[in-house]
Amino acid sequence: MCAPGCLETVHHRLSRRNFFKGAGATAAAGALAAAYPPRPAAAQPRSFERVVDMTHTMSPEFPTFFNKPGIELERMARIENDGYNMYRWSLIEHAGTHLDAPIHFSREDQHTAEQIPAEQLVAPLVVVDIKARAAESPDARLTPDDLKAWEAQYGPIPDGAAVAMNSGWDQHAYTEKFVGRDDDGGMHFPGIHAEATQYLLEETGAQGLMVDTLSLDYGQSTSFDTHYAWLPTNRWGLENLKNLDQVPASGATVVIGAPKVQDATGGLTRVLALV
Amino acid sequence: MCAPGCLETVHHRLSRRNFFKGAGATAAAGALAAAYPPRPAAAQPRSFERVVDMTHTMSPEFPTFFNKPGIELERMARIENDGYNMYRWSLIEHAGTHLDAPIHFSREDQHTAEQIPAEQLVAPLVVVDIKARAAESPDARLTPDDLKAWEAQYGPIPDGAAVAMNSGWDQHAYTEKFVGRDDDGGMHFPGIHAEATQYLLEETGAQGLMVDTLSLDYGQSTSFDTHYAWLPTNRWGLENLKNLDQVPASGATVVIGAPKVQDATGGLTRVLALV
Repeated sequence: MCAPGCLETVHHRLSRRNFFKGAGATAAAGALAAAYPPRPAAAQPRSFERVVDMTHTMSPEFPTFFNKPGIELERMARIENDGYNMYRWSLIEHAGTHLDAPIHFSREDQHTAEQIPAEQLVAPLVVVDIKARAAESPDARLTPDDLKAWEAQYGPIPDGAAVAMNSGWDQHAYTEKFVGRDDDGGMHFPGIHAEATQYLLEETGAQGLMVDTLSLDYGQSTSFDTHYAWLPTNRWGLENLKNLDQVPASGATVVIGAPKVQDATGGLTRVLALV
Repeated sequence: MCAPGCLETVHHRLSRRNFFKGAGATAAAGALAAAYPPRPAAAQPRSFERVVDMTHTMSPEFPTFFNKPGIELERMARIENDGYNMYRWSLIEHAGTHLDAPIHFSREDQHTAEQIPAEQLVAPLVVVDIKARAAESPDARLTPDDLKAWEAQYGPIPDGAAVAMNSGWDQHAYTEKFVGRDDDGGMHFPGIHAEATQYLLEETGAQGLMVDTLSLDYGQSTSFDTHYAWLPTNRWGLENLKNLDQVPASGATVVIGAPKVQDATGGLTRVLALV
């Protein structure tokens, strides 16, 4: 997602001729999707015993990129007067625990929110822990080495997996550290390194990428390499996850309660892990 | 939910002194919740092999009670100009496939959307078929006899169950029949009979009530007996379900991707069945 002040960089990047050569080329979205087709999860029985809620409570106070509330509620009915209670919401798609649909960073006809197949929303959950490095620096990133270490311990990342970065950042959700704004207006929080994104595309059949921070790309990113590499392959992203410490690194199933809204580029999402 | 023209009835009802004596008495919500505490689903392993999407695509065209769009999208960013795509939504809480949180029809401090325990959102799914009667009359209702017939065939309704009415109405979602407005402005679609609601409260530990129509109460209702009996017991409702023919009558699990929005009385929800 794009912070105030970073749009110039994106505009510049989009106008560079060589932008259209790289993995981040949204103009080549169709080719990217063809090169790295998501692979469905294996059709096999899955079981669970309990539920873990991986969703932050959304409110006007939840931090956003936009320096304005991600949601505002306007009361439409009050039970004392109307017999029932009801609100209307004004909601920015990319705020709170939310989906990035492929179209969010794609020029071509990649999936809008309602077009994502339901089978892609129930996925084997892979949790990659980078908390130790993130505690040392808010600019930490999940790297290919982190993914290889996970695979060395738990086996290959399954087809159809949702791969989650656990940086421990959910603890900071209502503090200044969550955004980590510096004196220059830049931001500091962990994210996914472009090389890790490329590793997932080339070496695995993962279809979802999830973070417990504001963005798939780390706060210092101005080029949004992970967004531009991942989403145009018709894969989805999920930001502002919670409670990754309460699920196992391997073996759980995550259910992405993504909004089925026509034309949407993402939106507020309930995320429940089945453990 | 309240249709244009029916508010007078609700106001009248709320002002009637004897209103506060019946099961629909929102003033007695605390007592109702104490009398009929929801029972959690049994803690036992559950398994599944496939996913069925029970969610309608939400768009400004999806029919609502309000004779106005349930959602409107306003573009905030376009990839050609901004480097990414994004909208802001204006969204009425009770439109599309959506949750009724207990507070929607409660005066007291019953659960708002974000307060519903996550364990209540993953529930044994009970599907009660009234399609034959609904095909004969749009004013058909699910009755205690329907529930007893289900139990005779499949055993007791499980604790923590989400009980769904399958009236076949999802087929009519984008036709005039879905709302069934008559010349007097009244509506005609199936719903849950108050006696069936009372049966579920008294005889079962069900915690969710779901319909494939616009409202838990049938279209001809002006007293909203099911809403007023069910929601103040701290149980939730779900309206405008789809694809109930694609899930078994017994044995599936339903995941309610309800919005975790502070103070919300419900809201747009992704519903996925695990079969």
